[in-house]
Amino acid sequence: MNLPAIFNKYRGDIETALKSALPGGNPALDRMMRYHMGWIDQTGHSTQGNSGKALRPTLCLFACQAISGDYHPALPAAAAIELVHNFSLIHDDIQDGDKERRHQPTLWWLWGKPQAIHAGIAMRIQASLALSRLSNGAVPTFRLLRANQLLDERCLEMIEGQYLDISYESRLDITVAAYLDMISKKTGALIGCSLEMGALVGGADDTSISCLHSCGSKLGLAFQIRDDMLGIWGDPRLVGKPLASDIRRKKKSLPVVYAFQQAKGRQRDELAKIYRGTDVGDSEVNQVLAIMDKLKAQDYAWQMARRFRQEALAGLKELALSQADQHLFVEVADFLVERNY
Amino acid sequence: MNLPAIFNKYRGDIETALKSALPGGNPALDRMMRYHMGWIDQTGHSTQGNSGKALRPTLCLFACQAISGDYHPALPAAAAIELVHNFSLIHDDIQDGDKERRHQPTLWWLWGKPQAIHAGIAMRIQASLALSRLSNGAVPTFRLLRANQLLDERCLEMIEGQYLDISYESRLDITVAAYLDMISKKTGALIGCSLEMGALVGGADDTSISCLHSCGSKLGLAFQIRDDMLGIWGDPRLVGKPLASDIRRKKKSLPVVYAFQQAKGRQRDELAKIYRGTDVGDSEVNQVLAIMDKLKAQDYAWQMARRFRQEALAGLKELALSQADQHLFVEVADFLVERNY
Repeated sequence: MNLPAIFNKYRGDIETALKSALPGGNPALDRMMRYHMGWIDQTGHSTQGNSGKALRPTLCLFACQAISGDYHPALPAAAAIELVHNFSLIHDDIQDGDKERRHQPTLWWLWGKPQAIHAGIAMRIQASLALSRLSNGAVPTFRLLRANQLLDERCLEMIEGQYLDISYESRLDITVAAYLDMISKKTGALIGCSLEMGALVGGADDTSISCLHSCGSKLGLAFQIRDDMLGIWGDPRLVGKPLASDIRRKKKSLPVVYAFQQAKGRQRDELAKIYRGTDVGDSEVNQVLAIMDKLKAQDYAWQMARRFRQEALAGLKELALSQADQHLFVEVADFLVERNY
Repeated sequence: MNLPAIFNKYRGDIETALKSALPGGNPALDRMMRYHMGWIDQTGHSTQGNSGKALRPTLCLFACQAISGDYHPALPAAAAIELVHNFSLIHDDIQDGDKERRHQPTLWWLWGKPQAIHAGIAMRIQASLALSRLSNGAVPTFRLLRANQLLDERCLEMIEGQYLDISYESRLDITVAAYLDMISKKTGALIGCSLEMGALVGGADDTSISCLHSCGSKLGLAFQIRDDMLGIWGDPRLVGKPLASDIRRKKKSLPVVYAFQQAKGRQRDELAKIYRGTDVGDSEVNQVLAIMDKLKAQDYAWQMARRFRQEALAGLKELALSQADQHLFVEVADFLVERNY
């Protein structure tokens, strides 16, 4: 499935906004941040980087454009949100001990955890400073202050979600409801923020801002659930992770949480034994896959992802957007749920 | 040497402001943050906590009072700065692997590094949100926006200083100038921010704000140098650290940097051997102390601390503060340099 056209439409402007949001000034921290963004390699040379889809800034610009007819005023906000996302990736890799991201060594693996923690924090602060560049006169002051607060509040929600995610690792009693609460924070908060921030900067009223936040949050749930599926059944060549990697890492992603909730008797005992154990080898992976198959966990995850995609689209209909804008949003939502990578 | 009266004058208000800056809402993160602040113990019960001197918020309130005659408008800013300071302590302990702070187990030692990283970030974000509480009408909007930016910029400087501090650990070629650059960021930035933030909120003009920033930064240098001295020659019972602990940890504090810069021939070889080695035992500690003694490193550190104290006071004289306020500041500066704990 190809990337919808809207991602390409904004790509160049987002890259420029991101580069001016990391303006330099402290060489050592800058180098780490630029490396993480995929702009330079370990030796400091420019690269033809792969900096990802830029989903969040794209959504932010889309919302501003849809509300006001112009996406340019939201560029500093779009950059800020992408930096917050990347700050969280830097710290995620430290916390999970992951040595690779986007086929490259992670920041902490090259520079050590203490300095990588600093680089993450520096990127989080640069996000706030990028947002303060909104104050060039185009956006009224009360919206600037609200934008600052919004970025902080949603980031705090995201941190809470990540906290829950880690705390779930050692538990076998996670319900689907608890899982949805966790991902609505971990993933939904910042994707929701992307749309509401674009709307806020674009001059939307409170009802529209809150509607777009809710659409984004639902889209975030759909996105995360599809991510969970790819972490188990995704094609390793497309996803860039080993086969069934999330089972090997014992992540409490939706298919696993659902399986634990549905499994009875011997099935449940088998699952519990594997998830309480230390090593998950090929035979355990196959056992878990077989149980998920019997319980139709993949069908369930598809249903859930499509349900939240549907709820996001239904929410958007409450806004009087143009047909063209509605179509763009549907394309993005479809892509997030149906993608294979 | 007793704590100057000004610390007690503001203590109650600072505590109230801090408690309302961590209002709760996500129980797990809140618990970690409150534990770090010394308000509850590991089991969640209230304690008669020892939350430190609260130097930074005290300076912030002092500046606002001295400029405007009222310190109350600066309370959210004072709380914000103290939270930034505490965020940095949480991450410091993770980065240094320290298991104790203020005679209590550190956050990461109890909750693990991944979750302690989250708690640190959450505290940093709560600092920004506390600052946004300035917007109750008492402070003009342009000062609010500037205050947000200031907190971020100074925090970024602090992170840069901490980055340098870690990067110096493995180097033997640090000059006194490089050391001063590092501590002016690591410690000077936030203490400078305390005074300038109070002045900004209090309605000071740009010249006074910048003058107070510079005074605070100088005070920060004096404070850090005295800290370095206490880390080597401080009384373990008063300082709460083992004898000569910073030599055992091979910290590049001023006396060591000075010794490396002054030592010649065999002295330098001895120092280099110890600082390149892995273990520093009693005999190595005594060797380093003897070399420092010969090179009069303690006298040098005293001179430097007192020089920066003097520069801070001279800077303050440029402002037309009342005699009483000048006296309060002198008392604080004297305490920071002459204290034994």
